[in-house]
Amino acid sequence: MTRIAIVGVAGRMGRTLVKAVQQDDGATLAGGIVEPGSTLAGADIGELAGVGRLGVAAVESLEAIVDDFDVLIDFTAPRVTLANLAFCAEHGKRMVIGTTGLADEELATLEGYSERLPFVFAPNMSVGVNLTLKLLETAAKALGDEGYDIEVIEAHHRHKVDAPSGTALKMGEVMADALERPLKEYGVYERVGQCGPRSDKEIGFATVRAGDIVGEHTVMFATEGERIEITHKASSRMTFAKGAVRAARWVAGQGNGRYAMQDVLGLE
Amino acid sequence: MTRIAIVGVAGRMGRTLVKAVQQDDGATLAGGIVEPGSTLAGADIGELAGVGRLGVAAVESLEAIVDDFDVLIDFTAPRVTLANLAFCAEHGKRMVIGTTGLADEELATLEGYSERLPFVFAPNMSVGVNLTLKLLETAAKALGDEGYDIEVIEAHHRHKVDAPSGTALKMGEVMADALERPLKEYGVYERVGQCGPRSDKEIGFATVRAGDIVGEHTVMFATEGERIEITHKASSRMTFAKGAVRAARWVAGQGNGRYAMQDVLGLE
Amino acid sequence: MTRIAIVGVAGRMGRTLVKAVQQDDGATLAGGIVEPGSTLAGADIGELAGVGRLGVAAVESLEAIVDDFDVLIDFTAPRVTLANLAFCAEHGKRMVIGTTGLADEELATLEGYSERLPFVFAPNMSVGVNLTLKLLETAAKALGDEGYDIEVIEAHHRHKVDAPSGTALKMGEVMADALERPLKEYGVYERVGQCGPRSDKEIGFATVRAGDIVGEHTVMFATEGERIEITHKASSRMTFAKGAVRAARWVAGQGNGRYAMQDVLGLE
Amino acid sequence: MTRIAIVGVAGRMGRTLVKAVQQDDGATLAGGIVEPGSTLAGADIGELAGVGRLGVAAVESLEAIVDDFDVLIDFTAPRVTLANLAFCAEHGKRMVIGTTGLADEELATLEGYSERLPFVFAPNMSVGVNLTLKLLETAAKALGDEGYDIEVIEAHHRHKVDAPSGTALKMGEVMADALERPLKEYGVYERVGQCGPRSDKEIGFATVRAGDIVGEHTVMFATEGERIEITHKASSRMTFAKGAVRAARWVAGQGNGRYAMQDVLGLE
Repeated sequence: MTRIAIVGVAGRMGRTLVKAVQQDDGATLAGGIVEPGSTLAGADIGELAGVGRLGVAAVESLEAIVDDFDVLIDFTAPRVTLANLAFCAEHGKRMVIGTTGLADEELATLEGYSERLPFVFAPNMSVGVNLTLKLLETAAKALGDEGYDIEVIEAHHRHKVDAPSGTALKMGEVMADALERPLKEYGVYERVGQCGPRSDKEIGFATVRAGDIVGEHTVMFATEGERIEITHKASSRMTFAKGAVRAARWVAGQGNGRYAMQDVLGLE
Repeated sequence: MTRIAIVGVAGRMGRTLVKAVQQDDGATLAGGIVEPGSTLAGADIGELAGVGRLGVAAVESLEAIVDDFDVLIDFTAPRVTLANLAFCAEHGKRMVIGTTGLADEELATLEGYSERLPFVFAPNMSVGVNLTLKLLETAAKALGDEGYDIEVIEAHHRHKVDAPSGTALKMGEVMADALERPLKEYGVYERVGQCGPRSDKEIGFATVRAGDIVGEHTVMFATEGERIEITHKASSRMTFAKGAVRAARWVAGQGNGRYAMQDVLGLE
Repeated sequence: MTRIAIVGVAGRMGRTLVKAVQQDDGATLAGGIVEPGSTLAGADIGELAGVGRLGVAAVESLEAIVDDFDVLIDFTAPRVTLANLAFCAEHGKRMVIGTTGLADEELATLEGYSERLPFVFAPNMSVGVNLTLKLLETAAKALGDEGYDIEVIEAHHRHKVDAPSGTALKMGEVMADALERPLKEYGVYERVGQCGPRSDKEIGFATVRAGDIVGEHTVMFATEGERIEITHKASSRMTFAKGAVRAARWVAGQGNGRYAMQDVLGLE
Repeated sequence: MTRIAIVGVAGRMGRTLVKAVQQDDGATLAGGIVEPGSTLAGADIGELAGVGRLGVAAVESLEAIVDDFDVLIDFTAPRVTLANLAFCAEHGKRMVIGTTGLADEELATLEGYSERLPFVFAPNMSVGVNLTLKLLETAAKALGDEGYDIEVIEAHHRHKVDAPSGTALKMGEVMADALERPLKEYGVYERVGQCGPRSDKEIGFATVRAGDIVGEHTVMFATEGERIEITHKASSRMTFAKGAVRAARWVAGQGNGRYAMQDVLGLE
């Protein structure tokens, strides 16, 4: 059993991680950290997460639970994450890091820890997204040069500030690589007015922004007579939380190094 | 029983019209016209359409069947259609016209016939599209000012040269009118790069172009916790052909005038 | 501003209600109740709900906040709800009740309160579902007798024990009423093996059970050449929570009586 | 250039085959056969198919074009197909056969020709369906034992007499094989009434019958937090016609033998 501690256990992602650990047969919940001074210090982290009392109280520092856990899961902020890396390297712990937005020098610092502890660092820990990328590669190779048009449609909540989504672009890149059609040349990101007929090799992107959509991506391969569509729908943070727990179980058995989600899932 | 003749019976739309008339219990196939000199003159129009022999041979002019039909259905070209209007006005016939691309002076000529015969003139005869517009008006009024984001997603075949489709724009206009949000101000037709969060009142459009898609339109109303989607999918020209036959049966009982599909369907 | 208190504020629905009240411009959060003896008594209900500190501490009884609120929202259990009705009737409060599973005698007791206070009692408070029922009635009347086949497809999470869902059946009933085709006679709930071609008037139901799907319902009207689909997707309890808050605002201005969601939304 | 002749060129599938050959850069249209006595004998097969005059007249027997073609495509009836096999074996021709409904003894006769000529015999020549089966195998292996529920949803036109479709069952079998969960034990074909929660390993099937749907299949893999959906939509006979033409080009380079679509596409 992998003993897991969670940073930021009072936040939305922290609570979701509690649920994901509790549902996993190979992992056990060993501790949860809240910000120093929070009114939630001392509260049961199971009750906090809405899954019933677990008998584990939220604490305000890693020191307080240093003997209890093997792997720390951290989806917080760059500064917090780097401090936690230092702590874990010193105390022989491992980490799973889903924090985003690291600046270049923070990334360099993080990279430096790859010789001091085993950790997984991945911007998207969804098992489904990673498998989808694999399926897209297979489909693009089989259909892309046989007259099938490729389109990527993505939908996200109203608060998202960029388009297309990073995942949509990643999908496009995987197919562009498989077909040797650089996105810079073949990606089409807007069609408005008299834009003329579609060219054979373009990879089109369409964007929807509405409501609370967590993230939906569909790739369509269409020709005269048929269509194949490969769709990924994230319905909650659980998809990322479950990937993180799977990564935690996996990293518990690895040597020092920085690992990606592809390593965890064994998708070459 | 309404006796129907079809112009351009050897073309794709003509063949589809033959099928639609044959399936309709209130209409009978009275004749079909092919271009003068076609190798298909004399062929059975049922065999031409792939529905089995009907005992009606394709002819090269309206004169040849002048006593046989009540209503002429015409999805051809402006010049042909105007000539047929003259013929029908003279011989007491009615028409259903799906021809598009009329220039302003051709439209004026057509309008002039509204006192000489009863005819339906409609760019989109689909019953479903016309009902969908009605549903969108109802939904927009109920949800548009209650925090639901509105997005229109449309997909068409690779040959379509403009975007968004005329039908998508029409859908947008119906909702814009219902909500008093002019599309000129609130329509958003592209989102690329760092475009920022969605504004409350915008009506977004997304475009897909691929394969042989006849025409698909989805309007999404999304808020935190739920989504309503209203979708129309045209799968073949039959949707237009059946609307035309319904219009032919209806116009058989009307007085002189130019009518629209809304009149035929009795949607206000 | 309607001052709202929430029973069961530590549960999943309770936390969601806190979020919904906080997002509503016409309502303010006046109190939250947890079970007597909970470790969460005294915690800030905003922090509990993951929306940041609100300055309102969870309490263990209604008495403690009797002067603070106007309307009580209750999605708990029959016995708790009936006790709360007694309290609210006595103290001039109003209620919004989403509790399900009341036995016949409990329903009778509840009904008895309709002369003692104003309250809304509704098994499904989603605005979207209620609007969808209205759209289905319109579409069924326009298409049902014109050769369009009607199918209802619903998908729910793996834990759901009955099929089709209550909402799917309600959708079927609304259309059956509009078309005078009793579901008992025309509903088709399974198709397996050599079941023969579809009959004209049947209303088909198909069921999907998988993962964590909160609730998706699609009604398809299909004929040769086109399809109209009307879809409702619940993505979280927020759809019910927001309906409840809307009901709370509305019931604050009503006289004694038991009301339904149709009353709240003004859909005849 | 592969010279292709088509049997039954006046039927719906025959006309579609004409279009598919004409669109293919590696094949040329060498002849078309109509039933003896048809009024369409002598008509231009391009005009018949609605693609414009091709300068090839429909004939009433294979003898009339014996020197013109290399491969015969045949989607007709068992008796006709077996007679054509005899003719082609005798004259050094090849065949692509999409005829269905052969009785056991007719299948044995067909099998006997595998030493006398090269031919492809396949009940479903869609490239997309065959690729989809491959994708499903990959996805089932990656997700099936990781807590993802598998459901197959299929929709077909109102005339289809059996359920689930042969293709849906084939999809189920491919995944059942990959997961060692025999469909006989784990396939669930109906859910009605109080059917209880979903079991972990079942593979569910849901069926929709409506309008003119050519054939749509979706396989859903769902777990808490995410869903992957793999969908195939046939929009017209072109999907089968194009597969047949691809098979014709391929079989032109093969030795005597009976081949399947998997051989043509080189999928394992």
